[in-house]
Amino acid sequence: MSANIGFIGLGNMGGPMASNLLKAGHKVKVFDLMPAAVEKLAASGATVCQDAKQACDDVQVLISMLPASIHVENLYLGEAGILSSIAPQTLVVDCSTIAPETSRLVAANAAERGIQMLDAPVSGGVGGAVAATLTFIVGGEKAALELARPIFENMGKNIFHAGAAGAGQVAKFCNNMLLSVLMTGTAEALQLGVDNGLDAGVLSEIMRQSSGGNWALEVYNPYPGVMDNVPASKDYEGGFLVDLMIKDLGLAMEAALQQGASVPLGSLARNLYINHGKAGYGRKDFSSIQKIYNKDEPES
Amino acid sequence: MSANIGFIGLGNMGGPMASNLLKAGHKVKVFDLMPAAVEKLAASGATVCQDAKQACDDVQVLISMLPASIHVENLYLGEAGILSSIAPQTLVVDCSTIAPETSRLVAANAAERGIQMLDAPVSGGVGGAVAATLTFIVGGEKAALELARPIFENMGKNIFHAGAAGAGQVAKFCNNMLLSVLMTGTAEALQLGVDNGLDAGVLSEIMRQSSGGNWALEVYNPYPGVMDNVPASKDYEGGFLVDLMIKDLGLAMEAALQQGASVPLGSLARNLYINHGKAGYGRKDFSSIQKIYNKDEPES
Amino acid sequence: MSANIGFIGLGNMGGPMASNLLKAGHKVKVFDLMPAAVEKLAASGATVCQDAKQACDDVQVLISMLPASIHVENLYLGEAGILSSIAPQTLVVDCSTIAPETSRLVAANAAERGIQMLDAPVSGGVGGAVAATLTFIVGGEKAALELARPIFENMGKNIFHAGAAGAGQVAKFCNNMLLSVLMTGTAEALQLGVDNGLDAGVLSEIMRQSSGGNWALEVYNPYPGVMDNVPASKDYEGGFLVDLMIKDLGLAMEAALQQGASVPLGSLARNLYINHGKAGYGRKDFSSIQKIYNKDEPES
Amino acid sequence: MSANIGFIGLGNMGGPMASNLLKAGHKVKVFDLMPAAVEKLAASGATVCQDAKQACDDVQVLISMLPASIHVENLYLGEAGILSSIAPQTLVVDCSTIAPETSRLVAANAAERGIQMLDAPVSGGVGGAVAATLTFIVGGEKAALELARPIFENMGKNIFHAGAAGAGQVAKFCNNMLLSVLMTGTAEALQLGVDNGLDAGVLSEIMRQSSGGNWALEVYNPYPGVMDNVPASKDYEGGFLVDLMIKDLGLAMEAALQQGASVPLGSLARNLYINHGKAGYGRKDFSSIQKIYNKDEPES
Repeated sequence: MSANIGFIGLGNMGGPMASNLLKAGHKVKVFDLMPAAVEKLAASGATVCQDAKQACDDVQVLISMLPASIHVENLYLGEAGILSSIAPQTLVVDCSTIAPETSRLVAANAAERGIQMLDAPVSGGVGGAVAATLTFIVGGEKAALELARPIFENMGKNIFHAGAAGAGQVAKFCNNMLLSVLMTGTAEALQLGVDNGLDAGVLSEIMRQSSGGNWALEVYNPYPGVMDNVPASKDYEGGFLVDLMIKDLGLAMEAALQQGASVPLGSLARNLYINHGKAGYGRKDFSSIQKIYNKDEPES
Repeated sequence: MSANIGFIGLGNMGGPMASNLLKAGHKVKVFDLMPAAVEKLAASGATVCQDAKQACDDVQVLISMLPASIHVENLYLGEAGILSSIAPQTLVVDCSTIAPETSRLVAANAAERGIQMLDAPVSGGVGGAVAATLTFIVGGEKAALELARPIFENMGKNIFHAGAAGAGQVAKFCNNMLLSVLMTGTAEALQLGVDNGLDAGVLSEIMRQSSGGNWALEVYNPYPGVMDNVPASKDYEGGFLVDLMIKDLGLAMEAALQQGASVPLGSLARNLYINHGKAGYGRKDFSSIQKIYNKDEPES
Repeated sequence: MSANIGFIGLGNMGGPMASNLLKAGHKVKVFDLMPAAVEKLAASGATVCQDAKQACDDVQVLISMLPASIHVENLYLGEAGILSSIAPQTLVVDCSTIAPETSRLVAANAAERGIQMLDAPVSGGVGGAVAATLTFIVGGEKAALELARPIFENMGKNIFHAGAAGAGQVAKFCNNMLLSVLMTGTAEALQLGVDNGLDAGVLSEIMRQSSGGNWALEVYNPYPGVMDNVPASKDYEGGFLVDLMIKDLGLAMEAALQQGASVPLGSLARNLYINHGKAGYGRKDFSSIQKIYNKDEPES
Repeated sequence: MSANIGFIGLGNMGGPMASNLLKAGHKVKVFDLMPAAVEKLAASGATVCQDAKQACDDVQVLISMLPASIHVENLYLGEAGILSSIAPQTLVVDCSTIAPETSRLVAANAAERGIQMLDAPVSGGVGGAVAATLTFIVGGEKAALELARPIFENMGKNIFHAGAAGAGQVAKFCNNMLLSVLMTGTAEALQLGVDNGLDAGVLSEIMRQSSGGNWALEVYNPYPGVMDNVPASKDYEGGFLVDLMIKDLGLAMEAALQQGASVPLGSLARNLYINHGKAGYGRKDFSSIQKIYNKDEPES
């Protein structure tokens, strides 16, 4: 069933997501500050808007995909904020990865105007955005999520309901903090085994089937040559950048600070990732953390 | 096919392992310094030996299961060492979790006498020993492992070949170091989510299906009440004790020291486990590390 | 030389600070939301104000001492903010320990109105506030600091100029982050020595005179019984509370997050302090971190 | 008063130490496996020995300065061990930095033969060895230390008695573990301040006089340009090498493992130093750990 959708933010992620909505037969009105990003979508059949407010007119669903909390706050709540331009029956879905308090603040403002809003940060990277295999981790009313589900399914595969407004953000940074720990711990265990004479592939397989089993060993082994078609076997190109992992860990750390939560392993992983970024690996895949453990290859 | 087997070391693990060999129809000669341990096996049909050397006589397979490196070294190589009492055609299998250099030293001494030896530390705990569902992680010749396989299968389910002598030990402590990091990281992520308003069960399920997925989330969730029948839902009773995790982490740290390996997350997990043990949790299940993150329940 | 001074915030620190200004012969107008705090100062000769604005009238210097950023922001900039009630020739000194961006924001707003402002967080604790031996770490114009110096000297001993607005806050949290690392590292080294047979006092003296020398070993030894008259020898009563160290470490961590700075040791110290607080030590002196290393606590 | 002294081990440290004994007027017999090292001392007036045993003949004091535990064990206790060649009235002083259990083992063997032995590891580096300003941290009988004191004073300035045999080793690695934490923590605090707009020199001075004060801020500031004549201002050349700090931290970690001691900060410092060494800084001064915090390194 075709819907009228507004889409604001057509970057590396938003662009292919909007494109998949067009492929699914929806009418999509798009806006981005970068003309090049807009033109690409226009060529695929999107209607070009001159500003964000235009993208809100006469749509059933409005989706935003922006880099950080400040952009989301400015878009919806700033002086030229679009909340006042959105009709009450519109379902608003913010797919940005931002601080949960920003998600909650915008959702509360939306609710005051009778607008339903979901925070729905994604995982799966650019590859997942293009292939329409993203995971959506959603905060907000369950009923609103069900309304949005067909739209999510045009852009992704797994859709999780994490809880009330902001919960999508919390679940995402908890997951990514754990991921940073898994990946770093896996890299560390593999190198310790190799330093003690084991074959990385053999050890990977033993741990994968044992109590050390985790997502990295299943599908994203950080040790070069163990798996085909993962960044580790392509000089850590592509994938999920170290700089982006640092951003997500920052959101987790902020939340930990606010709650007085203890996060020793997450903090350590973050600091190791920052050191790694400073050593020149910011634009490499996050599994390149393997490099800090490697005996044979000095980093400088 | 029935074999004559000698079994030395009938503790919490060795006792049920020897018992399973008897159930499988083998003739088992047993020895332990503790009379009570021996009597229990005798009641199940084992032949009681007066000393370790007797357990070596006329057996096809000799198995040992001892607490630490020093015991294994003393048993095989000490002044009253049994290596000289073992016939060359005997297959020797040490299931103790010890330092790999001890495994290598004993195996090298055995090889000089023409005796094949495997290091085969297990995982799965007392429960796995009783249920014959242990995992064996084996170092030594592949051919020797194949000879031992039917015997392993009487006591466990998964049998891995990690590499040459000592490799079973290395693979085990690498796995358990990674496990300590996964478990601690999972506990940390769950509490961070709960502190930020999420339900532990909902967050567990989201991360389990996402890139934070790992063994703890699959079968051994550390957060009370999320899973039935795990230590977390039984006040952390039973399972794999904090004190034993500390022991295994000690082996990993020793190996890291010897190789100059970098193990920041493993070191941190170990130190957190030691702090946790000092706070009174040494005899609780290792998933009780959840407690150090818990806001509402002061530990003292 | 006597001055007219307004003083807002008469808590554990502000109270004795204002009292010392009275003792030095200044005319002090005071305000606090807590009547009991105000009455105490009134009994010492202070003029009681009915609200914060009254404390700004006809004073040469206005001092504030509040718990956190939000209170400072509300006091000066909020709807009922007092900046508009302060005469341009007034020197404003905020002694609160808060985020540097809040100090900078308030100072910038003050500057727009022609008001000079200093951020001057203190160290030395309640004891130092009472004894007029506080250290002031000051951000803002050097000339303004020189104007305020006689006032500072009525309340403390050391006055440092850290740099421009906000620099006082930065220098304080950098110092306190380093202090948390020194204290924790000293406790750790002492216990490692004791566990290996050394006398804590002998080891303390050796390290104090060697390259391990630091403030904790000089005047604030965390090991019970090594020094008289320190919290460690009084069951860790009094001094600088664990909860306050956690607060200051939070400011350091926030600044590190904002700058993408790597702070592995500071992060670890903070997480250990949080664990320590959760274990029931939040209201003990921060040198009680020694407890997490102590073997005498039951291990099982 | 001139003594007959045997000196075994004439490396970077032992060479200048023996040379200072010659300058002080002692008769010194020397041995080293490296002919070049021996020749240099011969040119200064030392008597050359053909093997270690010759260096024991007819001396009042025998000093050894070797790289690691294994060398000390082999020298004194091995098959060609020299203990049997040492006259009971000889005072034996081992200045090597080694494991305390090795010191205790050799001392116990010496005691059985009626030989007094001290473990006396030094700090102060090659510079201190040349300038005769070393610090000796001594384990063994106090009376034996007093006998050796004049000899120590020919080679150094500070002489500490840490306790019984092995205590010199324990005190040294405790001190150096704390030093690694101080240096790393100081570097971290300085960079956090600089990243937040402070001048490194100003911040150093504030913290030096405050509760962050420590040996690094007093005499060995790690931030380039703050102090003259420290490694930080000479591209981290000279001084105490990262590789040697890693060695000493290894001794601390071994002792912690054996005692089940918790050493989270020491472990983290060690792992950061190992990462730093792998990144190519093993032969730089240990204050170069500042580099891992430095923002100027390219982030991508």
